[in-house]
Parts: sequence; C-alpha cells; structure tokens
Amino acid sequence: MPLQFMRLGPPDHERPAVRHEKVLYDLLPLTQDIDGAFLESGGIDRVRAALQRGELSQLDDPGDGSGMRVGAPIARPSKVLCVGLNYRQHAEETNAPIPTEPVLFMKDPGTVVGAYDPVLVPRRSRKTDWEVELAVVIGKTARYLANHEEAISCVAGYAISNDVSEREFQLERGGQWDKGKSCETFNPLGPWLVPASDVSNVQELELRLWVNGTLRQNSSTSDMIFPVAEIVRYLSQFLVLRPGDVINTGTPQGVALGQPEPKPYLREGDVVELEIRELGKQRQELRQA
Amino acid sequence: MPLQFMRLGPPDHERPAVRHEKVLYDLLPLTQDIDGAFLESGGIDRVRAALQRGELSQLDDPGDGSGMRVGAPIARPSKVLCVGLNYRQHAEETNAPIPTEPVLFMKDPGTVVGAYDPVLVPRRSRKTDWEVELAVVIGKTARYLANHEEAISCVAGYAISNDVSEREFQLERGGQWDKGKSCETFNPLGPWLVPASDVSNVQELELRLWVNGTLRQNSSTSDMIFPVAEIVRYLSQFLVLRPGDVINTGTPQGVALGQPEPKPYLREGDVVELEIRELGKQRQELRQA
Repeated sequence: MPLQFMRLGPPDHERPAVRHEKVLYDLLPLTQDIDGAFLESGGIDRVRAALQRGELSQLDDPGDGSGMRVGAPIARPSKVLCVGLNYRQHAEETNAPIPTEPVLFMKDPGTVVGAYDPVLVPRRSRKTDWEVELAVVIGKTARYLANHEEAISCVAGYAISNDVSEREFQLERGGQWDKGKSCETFNPLGPWLVPASDVSNVQELELRLWVNGTLRQNSSTSDMIFPVAEIVRYLSQFLVLRPGDVINTGTPQGVALGQPEPKPYLREGDVVELEIRELGKQRQELRQA
Repeated sequence: MPLQFMRLGPPDHERPAVRHEKVLYDLLPLTQDIDGAFLESGGIDRVRAALQRGELSQLDDPGDGSGMRVGAPIARPSKVLCVGLNYRQHAEETNAPIPTEPVLFMKDPGTVVGAYDPVLVPRRSRKTDWEVELAVVIGKTARYLANHEEAISCVAGYAISNDVSEREFQLERGGQWDKGKSCETFNPLGPWLVPASDVSNVQELELRLWVNGTLRQNSSTSDMIFPVAEIVRYLSQFLVLRPGDVINTGTPQGVALGQPEPKPYLREGDVVELEIRELGKQRQELRQA
C-alpha cells in the first residue's frame, strides 16, 4: 500500500500525518511539517522505517475532510510552476498550436489551499475555469539536469492540483497568463502527497473532473505532450528547482474555455470534484470573493 | 536622514542591520530578520523608536560590500511580481504597443540575491540582458484595494532591483515571459530597503545603469506609464499582496534588446552597476553558470 502524506488542521497550523492501509498516523514526533527540508533530508524514508518498526501513533481523524481540515500536503512551496497546453486534445480545444517545447508560467504560491477548501470566484470575474492536473512535488535541489533519469530522481511525489484560472484575466487583460492564474485560493492541492516510488506508472494515470456532478474532464496522463521526466529536466535548464516546489503539469481537454457558447464558467455555489487514480479525490465549493 | 535597512552575512545566514546617518546598527536584539512578519508588525517604527532612544549597538562593518556580504534587504519574499513595459520609451524601443493596463509576469523568488553578488550567465544563454528597476516591498496583506491612498499605505519601502532577463528564453522559446526571467541569481535586490516615508517623491527618482562603465540606462520614475500607487491598487484586484512581497515596477529604455545589432548582451566578466537616487548603488560581475 502506498503512503499518503497529509497536513491536518487550520490554515497555517496544519500538523503532519501519514495514511497507510487506511490508518492515519501522527508525524509530529518525526517532523514539524511536511516541507522542502523534510523531503530533502530523506523524510519519506524515515517515515517508512518508523512505520515498519511500529513507532508511530494513530490519529483518530479519518483524513477525508470530515474531521480536521485537510490542508495542502506540502507547506510553503517556494514556487508553483505550471506547464501550459501539455495535453494534445486540450491544445486543440483552445485553438492553440501544439507546443514544440514546454510552455512555462507561474502561480503565486500563496494560492495553494487544501483539497476541500472553498474556491473564491474573484470580484468582477466572469470566466472562472477549472483544470485538473497532476502536480509534481520536487524533493531535491536541481540545476541543469542531464537526462530523464536524473530528473525523475528529483521528484519526491505526486498530488492532485486544480489549476483554477480566470480566462478573461489570463487572456484579455494585457500580456501574460499569470494575471489570471494567481487569484486567492486558485490552487487546491492534495489531499495527499504520494511518494513517487509508490505510484505505479505516472504516465498512465486517469484524471477526471466533475462540475455539479457532470463529468467535464476525463483523460489520462498518457496524453501528455511532454512527460513528467522531460518537464523536470527541461525546467531545470531555466531555473533552480528546490525541495518543496510544485509543478502543475498541464490539464487535459474539457475546460469551460473549450466548450460551446454559452461557456459554463464557474459561479458561486458550484461544486467541483477532481480525481486522479492513486492520488485521491478533491471537492471544492465555489464562493464569491 | 532616511533609514536604510540591510541584511549582512553569508547567504541564508544574513543578520539584520540598519544604517542611519552613515552609522550601521545591529538589529538582532530587535528582530531575527527583516521579513514580512517584521514589516507587518510595525518593525520599521520599532527601529525608529529604538534609534531615537539610543538603544541600538553599532556594527563596525561599513555596509558597502567591503566588509560582510550584503544580502538582499528582505528575506524570503513569498513572490516577486513584475510589471512589464511600464516606461514609455522602453515600450517604444522594444517595438511593443503602450499597455492600456499593467502587464504582469513573475520571477522565481529564489532568484533574489544581494546587490553585489555575482550574476550567472545561464548555460546556453546568448541574450542575457539588464534592467534597472524600482522595487516596491509590500508591508501589509492587501486584497481589492479601493484607491491609491489605500495602495500607498501598503508599501513598506523601496529598493533597487536588477530584473535580469534572458531574451531568447523570454521571447523565442515558446509561450510566456517567465521562462527568461527566473534563471539563478537573476534578481539582485538592494543594497538597502528605504522606508516609504523616507523617500522624497517616488515618482521623481532618477535611475541609471552602466555596463563596463558605459551609461546604458538613464531615466526617471516620472516616465512610468502606471505609477507605483496604481500598480499596487491594480495588482490587488488579481491576487493577494502579502508582507515582504516584491514588485519590480518596470525598466526604462536602454536595455541590450533595444540596441542596434550586434546587441551588447552580457557575457562573463562584464560588470553592471545600477543606481537609483536615495536608494544606493548596486554592482554585479557576470560569471558563467
């Protein structure tokens, strides 16, 4: 059974935990938090060893959002990198050419919230959209990686990400996409961080997203134009990847932007659910900012 | 005389200090660091009061880079926001239309280094360029600011920023500008943070930049298309500004990209010097990554 790392409790006061075979264990005796320092120092292996030795205490919380709040599974990423147009059929639905190399943009890391936290429709927004994505969490400092093997060795684990996007802010308000990607609460992450070695095949994971119960996105990471190893190798040529950094690897077809008019953009009261096989399920209710 | 906040010492181990009337004082008895929490909690006023009461001890270091290393004057910004094409004559030299609203892009906050630290020419870079800019440091959490008065009240202070840019990565490698803005060491900041109330008129500051002694940029913040108050008000409509965040407010004309061929892009061994009146002077030597 894979490990599922979690952070439970009120915003900015989450405590670290791990789920294993549906039992939740307290990680506070091992680490103050699940963050870049924890990952870089071999924290995942320490937790595995402690579990095998039966040294961890159980927590009563079910870890599904019905007990303590579920925070993002990684604390304080120093940056959130995003790859745009990385699924063939999504590039087609947005009438964009197939990229010849990864398209990079960024989100404010302050947008990262928990998997069941509400998402705020920004004031004056008319085009708030969803994007289910596979998130990569970096475990080691990386510069100028030489090949895919080096790249994959820098990945600590994977999680679900909702790369919430305001399309008017992103595409019609002058300049760069970042303006529509960084509104408050625009990056639900989790519920779990699953160690890379516990995921069966990261390029064959099914991704799904529902809005108010209607299936809107239904694809697989096998449709990625640039696979995870290439994304990590490529980005390390342009910037330093640091432990705890998050990379959103792109969304498949089925976003509101790609639908016929009137496009079904998100409004207060809507409910978005996301699922990636082996990585759990998210659920967010939309509220007005 | 204005206060000049500094952080002195090796990377990630800087200690806080303040210069006043050319004397450097230790701030460790008052705060562990100069960061968002320090600014948000009224740290600047506490330092002013302690100085008036004569409670601070002097440091021997001259604070000009000849003694201890000068780090960036703010620790760990949660994000670095950048406004593009915000000087009339720079928009013209890059053949870009004058923006009708601020253009936003982002830099990896890990690019922030000290004012005298070396700048690395990325591997495979052919178009590394300079950009002297006025940096705004945010002092309060801000959402949906209503007007310029509210916006200015959120500014803690100002510093010099070199928004180093790789033009091929930025403009010719697919997609968004961020790819050419986030290479390692690409954001020298400082040497000082000057409190907003100590700057005479932020829209009448002269900016200058020299490469190997040749004056390349020579302008004034009076040429900004969107002034500081409007930038802060505008950005707060799209994302949450947090204490310690840095906003690079755009560069004036005179970058390498705007020169006739062969454009004088930066190479190993080049020396860049930057100056903004009231905010000090930077000096960086270029090295190969």
